Amino acid sequence: MQNINEDTITQAVLASMAGCRDERLRRIMTSLVQYLHLFARDVELTEDEWFKAIQFLTDVGHITDDKRQEFILLSDTLGLSTLVTSQNNKKPPACTEATVFGPFFVEDAPEYDCGDDIANGAQGETCFVQGRVVGLDGSPIAGALLDVWQSDEDGFYDVQAQLQPGEAPQYRARAKLRSGPDGRFHFRSILAEAYPIPHDGPVGRMLAATGRHPWRPAHLHFMIQAPRYETLITHVFRNGDKYLDSDVVFGVRSTLIADWNRHEAGIAPDGTRMERPFYTLDYDFILNPAAATQ
Amino acid sequence: MQNINEDTITQAVLASMAGCRDERLRRIMTSLVQYLHLFARDVELTEDEWFKAIQFLTDVGHITDDKRQEFILLSDTLGLSTLVTSQNNKKPPACTEATVFGPFFVEDAPEYDCGDDIANGAQGETCFVQGRVVGLDGSPIAGALLDVWQSDEDGFYDVQAQLQPGEAPQYRARAKLRSGPDGRFHFRSILAEAYPIPHDGPVGRMLAATGRHPWRPAHLHFMIQAPRYETLITHVFRNGDKYLDSDVVFGVRSTLIADWNRHEAGIAPDGTRMERPFYTLDYDFILNPAAATQ
Ligand SMILES: [Fe+2]
Ligand SMILES: [Fe+2]
Repeated sequence: MQNINEDTITQAVLASMAGCRDERLRRIMTSLVQYLHLFARDVELTEDEWFKAIQFLTDVGHITDDKRQEFILLSDTLGLSTLVTSQNNKKPPACTEATVFGPFFVEDAPEYDCGDDIANGAQGETCFVQGRVVGLDGSPIAGALLDVWQSDEDGFYDVQAQLQPGEAPQYRARAKLRSGPDGRFHFRSILAEAYPIPHDGPVGRMLAATGRHPWRPAHLHFMIQAPRYETLITHVFRNGDKYLDSDVVFGVRSTLIADWNRHEAGIAPDGTRMERPFYTLDYDFILNPAAATQ
Repeated sequence: MQNINEDTITQAVLASMAGCRDERLRRIMTSLVQYLHLFARDVELTEDEWFKAIQFLTDVGHITDDKRQEFILLSDTLGLSTLVTSQNNKKPPACTEATVFGPFFVEDAPEYDCGDDIANGAQGETCFVQGRVVGLDGSPIAGALLDVWQSDEDGFYDVQAQLQPGEAPQYRARAKLRSGPDGRFHFRSILAEAYPIPHDGPVGRMLAATGRHPWRPAHLHFMIQAPRYETLITHVFRNGDKYLDSDVVFGVRSTLIADWNRHEAGIAPDGTRMERPFYTLDYDFILNPAAATQ
């Protein structure tokens, strides 16, 4: 410990954790230190570059607050989120694939009944969404809890709204719903549109510096929970979107792409007479049984 | 890009940076993504663990401000700072070794003349420090700029003081000094004492969880700059300190350990009559010529 150098530092750090009683934590920290050091050695990181990295992480920390999670954006844009999602959601190919969680989920979304308009004032073209939640054998999963969230036509989630002092946040285009006895759910919302992730901060600077655009293809977020099934966190992506091949957070799976069908003014699926054109989306989710019940 | 999975995500992220025009940045980001993904694969990082890591980094960001740099503490305690310092400060063995910068340096320390008392009210036993700044051949380096900084007897740096509203920060035990024509410098300060790094935050929690203590052996920080020489950032460590073999930031080098000699009350090196016991430290710094002049 009194003559640590470039060659011995890694072993010294690992030795310092010999007293760690949490075996899993020690395994994680051991690996983290080894790969972090391998990285610094591989690129022969300079002191200036190290300091820029410190400043970058400081900026990421300082822009992060209750409404903006820049560390998740960083993980998403470096592909770490997709890697972690993939390696933790291995399931039979017939099941609906998972994809990244993203930074815009909120715990306490308002509850709606099937058929309700969850837009709650979010601007966009009207879209009627329906589908079923089923098991691997196609049997309906009744009473599944669906969390749904999406951006408005300008690409902003409700949680990104700039509030005036004293103004209460409004949940828009965000809902908790339950599937019916036949596993069906349906609701009214707005058309999903492509949007750039927040790119006025350090992650945006990283994207620009590495020649990347900040866009995500249009999508609708779902989290679906049901007893005795694995929780599914995923999106449905809008077919035809020009960013399907370059999603900045690497979330697209071809099995998650669906058609948003456009209809001229007329009778909507729920019987409403629509004065303007509207869209429909029909998508079924196939859940994986939880490990303990398999 | 539409069927990214656990096996293809790394290549997809690298491909997304194909338009990066800064070759060095692309090299760094390519390596970073590869090693970050290798780490996540190696430990089979779970989604819960990923989220704890996001929360940990968020906490590190939020406790970091103008006076506290938790990301530097994190880098220091994971040995990254020592690795980067080592691989960027290779020099002839006769030169004074570099060590970690630490988070407590400030740019605009007050200027003092040789012989001044730089403690400026910092509490501790009196210590008289002297030495020379020389080249590899022992020739004096006149006019070298020395930044010196240290903690007080309670282990706190001036920048850690809790200020009252409106109270101006005071620089204590921190100075800029110049070596004289013979390369000599000398100043009065206080005895260096061991101290724990700030451990009431996320880095402290990480240390506790991994079975590590937060202590650094007693030391005095120096940064020495002179034209035509490499800048030297280092510490002098106090011989006999019980943490020399377990410095939490891996900064000790045996060549940087020196004796702080204790003297009974009497005449100090500068002629002052001392009513109490005092200490002296004598240490010479050997600078490396800058690359361009070699
Ligand atoms: Fe989204
Ligand atoms: Fe220090």
